Order: sequence, then C-alpha cells, then structure tokens
Amino acid sequence: CLQVATNVTEQKHNVSREVRGQNLGLCRGFRGCTVWLTGLSGAGKTSIAFELEAYLVSKGIPAYGLDGDNIRTGLNKNLGFSQVDREENIRRVAEVAKLFADSGVVSICSFVSPFAEDREMARKIHKDADLKFFEIYIDTPLEVCETRDTKGLYKKARQGVIQGFTGVTQAYEAPDTPDLRVSTEGVTVRESTLKLIRLLEDEAIIPKFIKEDEPLPELYVSESLKAALEAESKTLPALSIAEVELQWLQILAEGWASPLKGFMREQEYLQALHFNCLLNEDETLRVNQSVPIVLSATESDKQRLEGVSALALHYNGRVVAVLRKPEFYFQRKEERCARQFGTTNRDHPYIKMIYESGDYLVGGEIEVLERIQWHDGLDAYRLTPNELRQKFREMKADAVFAFQLRNPIHNGHALLMSDCRRQLLERGFKNPVLLLHPLGGWTKDDDVPLPVRMAQHQAVLDSGVLDREHTVLAIFPSPMMYAGPTEVQWHAKARMNAGANHYIVGRDPAGMPHPDKALY
Amino acid sequence: CLQVATNVTEQKHNVSREVRGQNLGLCRGFRGCTVWLTGLSGAGKTSIAFELEAYLVSKGIPAYGLDGDNIRTGLNKNLGFSQVDREENIRRVAEVAKLFADSGVVSICSFVSPFAEDREMARKIHKDADLKFFEIYIDTPLEVCETRDTKGLYKKARQGVIQGFTGVTQAYEAPDTPDLRVSTEGVTVRESTLKLIRLLEDEAIIPKFIKEDEPLPELYVSESLKAALEAESKTLPALSIAEVELQWLQILAEGWASPLKGFMREQEYLQALHFNCLLNEDETLRVNQSVPIVLSATESDKQRLEGVSALALHYNGRVVAVLRKPEFYFQRKEERCARQFGTTNRDHPYIKMIYESGDYLVGGEIEVLERIQWHDGLDAYRLTPNELRQKFREMKADAVFAFQLRNPIHNGHALLMSDCRRQLLERGFKNPVLLLHPLGGWTKDDDVPLPVRMAQHQAVLDSGVLDREHTVLAIFPSPMMYAGPTEVQWHAKARMNAGANHYIVGRDPAGMPHPDKALY
Repeated sequence: CLQVATNVTEQKHNVSREVRGQNLGLCRGFRGCTVWLTGLSGAGKTSIAFELEAYLVSKGIPAYGLDGDNIRTGLNKNLGFSQVDREENIRRVAEVAKLFADSGVVSICSFVSPFAEDREMARKIHKDADLKFFEIYIDTPLEVCETRDTKGLYKKARQGVIQGFTGVTQAYEAPDTPDLRVSTEGVTVRESTLKLIRLLEDEAIIPKFIKEDEPLPELYVSESLKAALEAESKTLPALSIAEVELQWLQILAEGWASPLKGFMREQEYLQALHFNCLLNEDETLRVNQSVPIVLSATESDKQRLEGVSALALHYNGRVVAVLRKPEFYFQRKEERCARQFGTTNRDHPYIKMIYESGDYLVGGEIEVLERIQWHDGLDAYRLTPNELRQKFREMKADAVFAFQLRNPIHNGHALLMSDCRRQLLERGFKNPVLLLHPLGGWTKDDDVPLPVRMAQHQAVLDSGVLDREHTVLAIFPSPMMYAGPTEVQWHAKARMNAGANHYIVGRDPAGMPHPDKALY
Repeated sequence: CLQVATNVTEQKHNVSREVRGQNLGLCRGFRGCTVWLTGLSGAGKTSIAFELEAYLVSKGIPAYGLDGDNIRTGLNKNLGFSQVDREENIRRVAEVAKLFADSGVVSICSFVSPFAEDREMARKIHKDADLKFFEIYIDTPLEVCETRDTKGLYKKARQGVIQGFTGVTQAYEAPDTPDLRVSTEGVTVRESTLKLIRLLEDEAIIPKFIKEDEPLPELYVSESLKAALEAESKTLPALSIAEVELQWLQILAEGWASPLKGFMREQEYLQALHFNCLLNEDETLRVNQSVPIVLSATESDKQRLEGVSALALHYNGRVVAVLRKPEFYFQRKEERCARQFGTTNRDHPYIKMIYESGDYLVGGEIEVLERIQWHDGLDAYRLTPNELRQKFREMKADAVFAFQLRNPIHNGHALLMSDCRRQLLERGFKNPVLLLHPLGGWTKDDDVPLPVRMAQHQAVLDSGVLDREHTVLAIFPSPMMYAGPTEVQWHAKARMNAGANHYIVGRDPAGMPHPDKALY
C-alpha cells in the first residue's frame, strides 16, 4: 500500500536552458561530484541549491539541481513517506546524483534526508564510483522553519493532515560531522551559498572566481603590515617608474585587472598578446586581458637588478610599492605594438611611449604601500572597483551599464545612454544604474584635459540630460592606449570587475586617426 | 517477490572523465535531448550508444550514456524482468534521461525496451518537459543477435535458465515509426553511429562537424556539373590570380582549410586576424583558422567587378574556378601584417608580397573546375586530405603524427620523429603512422627548392633512418608565410583535416631571422 506524495510543488531552477548553453566551457575541467543538502523542510535547502547551481553555471561549470519536490513529481512519484519509501527515495536520488557526477556535473541534491543511515548509503554509492560527496547540513532550527512554513506543510502536520512529518511527528537525525554546516538565520541565501562555494574551492572542485558580492582582491598592503613593508622597502634596490606606470600600478592595486597580481611576467605577456586572455595554472580557465600591463626597464636596470628577490618601486623619489621575484624579459617592442595596435607606426602616441621606454620588461607580484592619489581636486571621483560595487549595492541596482569616455559628452552619447537604460528596463530590470566613467589616466596631447571633461560631465548631470538618480560619475584611472577593438575588451573587462554587467560600445571605440593621415 | 537482475555486466564508457573535462565548451549551446535506442539483446545498442557518446564529447558537446546493464546495477538494481518491473525500469530511466536532457546533456539511453507502450511513455515524459526525444530502432534480426550472443544470454534463455527473455520467451514489439531505423549487419559500429549523428545534425541538435571517416567536403565541381560550370565561366567577368593565389585555391579546393568554402569575406578575415578562429553562424562553435586565406584585387578590379554575381578566376589565361557573390573590401595591409606577423617590415618576404598585391580583397564561395596540378614530376606526392585519410585507413593507423618541413631533414628532425613514435607506442597506440609532410607552396628565395628537398626526403627513407613501413611522404601544397606561432596553428589545423591527430612543433617553428638583422 503506497502513501503517494501529494504535498509536492514544482521548484523552478534559477537558470534557463539558454544560459546553460551560453556559458558552457567558460571553464574546462572535470568537476563531477555531489553536494548533498540535508535539513528540515523550510530550512532553505532548495533556495541554496538553486543559487549554487546558478552561480556555477554562470561560471561555465556544469551543475544541476536535483530537488526533493521535483524528483517526487517524476522519478519518485511512486514513493510515499514511509520509512521504506524514504529510504528508496534517497537511494534512487543518490544513484542519479552519481550518474550526473560521473558525467562531469556538480550535482546538487536538496532532500530532507532525515536518516543518517540513508545519507551514509548515498555517500557510499559515490565513494564506490570514486566520486566526491559533500554532506551539507542546512542547520535551521525547527521553530524558524515552522515560522517560515512557506509551503504550509508544518500547519498541516500540526493539524494531523500530514502524517510522519519530519521534525513534527518523525525524527530528524542531524549529521554529527557534516562536511559543512550552514545556518540560515539572519543571513541571505547568497551568504549561505557562499559557504558552499568556498567549500568547493577549498576542495579544488572549482577554481577561485572573483565573486560579485565579495571584495575584489586589492594589492594594497594591509594597515598592520604597512610599517614592515615600508621598512623592508628601504633595504631593497630601487627602480624608478614613470607617471603612466604609476597609473598602471593604481589599476593593478585597485583590482581593475584582477586576477592579475602584479606587472605581467613573460608568460602572461605572451598570452595577452596572442590570445587576449590569461590562462590559469591548469589552463582550464581563460580570463580576458587584451592589453599588456607591464613595467619597463632598461638594459642597465636589468644588469643591476636581475636576480634580486624584490625591488622597491619609486615614483618621484618616494617608495610606492614592492615588486617580488622580478622577472626581466625582452619587451619585443615591435611585436608588441604590431599585435596590440595593428601598427608599429611610431607617430602613434602610445607606441611612441613604448619605443621610448626601456628595452626590457620586469614582471612580478606587487604590494602597494598606500592608496595612489593625484591631488588634483578630482581624487574623490577615483572610486575603486570595490567602492563602486558598494555604491551599486547601496543604490539597489539590479543592472549596471558602463559608458567609457575620453571626450566631453555629446548628444549622441547621451542618446546611447538613455536608450541603453530604456532597453534594460524593457528586458525587465527594475533599477538599471549608469556608470558614467571617463578615463582619467594618460591621454594624447590633443584630447580634452580631464578637469575640463569632469566639469562638463557634471554640467550635463546638473542640467538633467542624464538622470542623476540612476547615475554614478567616477573616474577610471587607466591610461588610454588608442588600440581600438583590442583595447575595448580591456575597457569592458575592467568595468565588469567594478560590478558592471552591460557595456556600451560606440563606433570606432578607442580609435584615433591613423598617424600617417595621408594613407587613410 | 522480486526477480532480481543477475545477468547484468558493467559496461565501460568509451570516454574518460579527463576527456570530458578537456573538451567541455569546444562547442556551446543548449543541446539537451534524449536519444533512445531500442532493440534486441545483442543488437548493438550499447556499442552504438557509447560510440555516439564519445563522438559528441570529442566535439565538446555534453553527452552521457545511460545503459541497461549499468542502470540495473545501480538505480534499478531492485527491479527484475517481470512486465511490471520492465515498465518501472523504463519509466525510471526515462525520468533520469529527462533530467539529463534538461541539464543540457544529450542523454543516450540503450535499453531493450521491448514494449511500445513503455517507449511511448518515455517519449511523453520528455514531451511534457518540452524536450526532444528520438526513438532509434537498432534493427538487428534475432538470428544475428543470437549468433553474436556476446553475453551468452541467448544460450541461457534457450536452456531455460533465463525466463521471459526478449525475443526467445517474451515478445519484442518493434517500433512501427521510429525516428530512425539502423541496421548493424555487415556495417561497423562507427557506420551505424554515423546515422545517429546525421539525425542529430538534421534536427539541429548539433552542428555539422567534419567527421574523420567521412570525405572532407572539397570545392572541386562534380564531374557531372563540370561542363555547365565551364560554359558559365565563359560568360563571367574575369579576374586573374597570381601563382601563390592558385596555391591557396588548391588549399581551399582540397579541404585543408575546411569548413572555409572560399576566399575569406571581410567578417571571416577580421575573425581570423583578431581571434585566430572562425565562428559559425550562431557563434556556438569556433574553428581554428589563424591565417587569412584571401584573394587580392586592385582598385580598378573593384570598380570593374563590384556588384557582379560571380567571377571567373583565371590563371595564365585559363579559367580555373568560379567565385560566387564576390565581396570586395579593403585589405588593411598594415593591420593584417601587424596582427598576423607581429611586424610590418616590408623586407619580410611574405609581407613584401602583400604590399605588392592589390589594396582590396575579394571574398566569396568558390567552385574549382579541375584538380590543380603543377606538372613538375611531383604531383603524385600531392595527396589531398581525403587521399591521405584513405591511406591512413588502409595502413590501419590508430594514430597519425604529422611533421611539417620546409627544409631538408636533419638528424634532429629524425630524432624528433622517432621519439614521437616511441611516445605514442608507450601511450598504447598500436600503429602510429608518420605523415612526413614537406610544404610545397611558395617559399622565400633562399630556402631549399622543393625538388631537392623531395629527393633528400626519399633518400632518408631509402636509407632506413625513418621507417618506411609506418611513414607517408606527401607534399602539403600551402604557401609558406613565415608568421611564426600564428602560422604554426595553421600548419597543425590543416594536418588535422587530413586525419592527423598529433603534431610535432620544433623550436622557432615557421620562423625566420628578422629582416632587419642588425636589430636582433
């Protein structure tokens, strides 16, 4: 006699089939394992499972959520809630999870699974197939679950409508030694999910990705270590850097180029030039980095400094950073310019700078002593990616669209921005925010100077042409390179690190007239 | 009372977890569907299913085989072979297949599934979830299955050891209208599997890939249409092509650059320059193409020919091909050279040729009148990719490793090749074959001429330094570009189209001294 499952409602995944397909292969590697969430009804298992699923899929990792309610409307619809049926329920799910894991998917199971013995069986099924299994205890107290009672099941159980309801009329055997214990009281689903993500990172199931709601790693030294670094830096050989290199140092320090942790080493340099990307160590992950971020050195710098364990970087006679394990390598100026700019014409202003710099580059991880400022009255606009993310959170933005500028705003620009906002609203976003983001680093002589541009941008905001309520005006501290489509990728990538998820590209972006105007 | 499944043996997938991870994302897009193979025991279902699975995974498409025997040792180990249990067996599998399909995987089910009603239920489960379901009837006659009897089950059934055995003591209801009927008599597993692949292509589940054992599409006109094309060509405006362009025409015609169907249009040109790849229409698939394959035109050609529906390509006053819907576009010589060669130095011999060619390029699909030959006594060495594949099949090669040469073989080369063979044997290949593949197209003046090189290669083979038994000596008709790492990708890709699956890269491949020798 079968007690069929009637108190079951379908759960919608947070990720569409379209998104699954689009993100496939952003990250390679076999990731197959099972993440098993156990806990009382209403504990938050499925919310966390589907959040984790959507996160993994967004990073290109195949993941699939197997959910108690969904399985009971399909595979296990011929099972009830007797002890035997509960055991068979868990056994079947564990077998299916194993198949998913074997196929390379992170299978995420959210099931009350009240009996320790059944969960042990699920673990064994995976162990026998040489697949990792993580038991996650979603530890929400019964009172809290019962207060939530999203499906009205506790009420029915108390009324006696449902028999053998876990926590009310049937025991829940909490795991003694789960792989992870997650509490959900007073924290968001996202915060709980982060704990699972961190577990998968620690277990080397997935790489460490930068998370939207975690601070970007910055390369500024922590306050407590600053004095020691300063003292150390005085003992280190010095390398002087130019103003534009200080701007790149700021870019690195604030995390715009994250996961880059310093000036590029030769391998990173060649990856950027040939593939517009950086690869991680096991080459399963590509991150866009279309322009080299490098520090130049002369032949005599190289002879003087090659082989030292660290360098102190000096700007205007002051130590600004320490660079560890310096690697000196040939700059290949001609090849660099050719691949990055599509020309080697030395009348191109950035190429001119490259040719005037040292013949070598020096790569290495950096630690920066203190926040880089320019004391031009505009530092308040130089928000770091972390400060921008914080701002977007405060504004409750559900979409951020960035507009890169190195010129005054004209009507065409304003139209593009208004239209982008309109399109995002049409797509269902409730609160799209514009990141109006003029470039503040080095530009060529005939571009409009930054202070003039900032005054003009403020005037446009004041005049109401752009909606001040939904706009953040800030300065992007990167130098300009005038490298066209190759540079546009950099402009977009840096803004993604700052929390933007949409980017407006105009005609001829990051372009300039050919230096030899007669030609074109 | 349960009749448990005892006559069940584990089936090993043809694809390892490592390979699953490596190939992930070679091809994007949501591909979720279920391919259901039904047929008698011994019909060949699982062999075909696992061959299909390995094929799809090799192309980067997530696929997973659910196999009768494997499921019965796991998920369905508590089911026997009574009618009720058979029905439940199929129901559970269909539910699991649906979950896999929903997760974006091509789930491939191989189950006897003798009852039409059960298969109909499986289809309905998918239809209700808005997922495609393909019923494949593996139509092998009972006598043949019984002769094969790989698992010895028919014998047991005839002896009465197994009861209710499909085809012997229980009926098999063959599908009336399967989505595909596949016979396995007198054909290889691979040939049967190709039919399933073609079905998935036709149903737009997967893109059309070039298959190793199918002829590469060539751009030579078929014998039957030749006269018509020749007649048409006489009515078309003419464009004369240079010798090096005829060499590229041969490359295109013979399929070395497949899937490229003609000289590149502007979009393909820019993709090659910026990404070293071609994208398919919906951008789910990238195919390596690191060097442009283009046809140049002068300003006056453009003025004369722009807008015509087709062109006749003339070489030495003779029509060699027709180019359809010509698209004229600016060559951007400087950018092309910069991105392809990493230099724009006009003393580089190929760059010199580019600068001496027309300022425009003309792209379009081509049809070539007849096999391109050079009448230099070496045409017999100019095997097409299809001819090479055929040769490797005849030699029963299970691995093909290619060696690109544009110089005489020296001892270092011979060592590389012998060592590569040794490594392949160590990895478990039984019959690795060397494709000794000197480049036969244009080379710079100070390289050793082709006839001299061929004579030297033959002498090396005759002397026994390389093993003649396991070597194919042929000419690669491509021109040389001296574009270093960018060109190496082309050299490898073209050989993969010819059936090679391993490629030896030496130091400084496709390199040459910098034209301005004082610099380096």
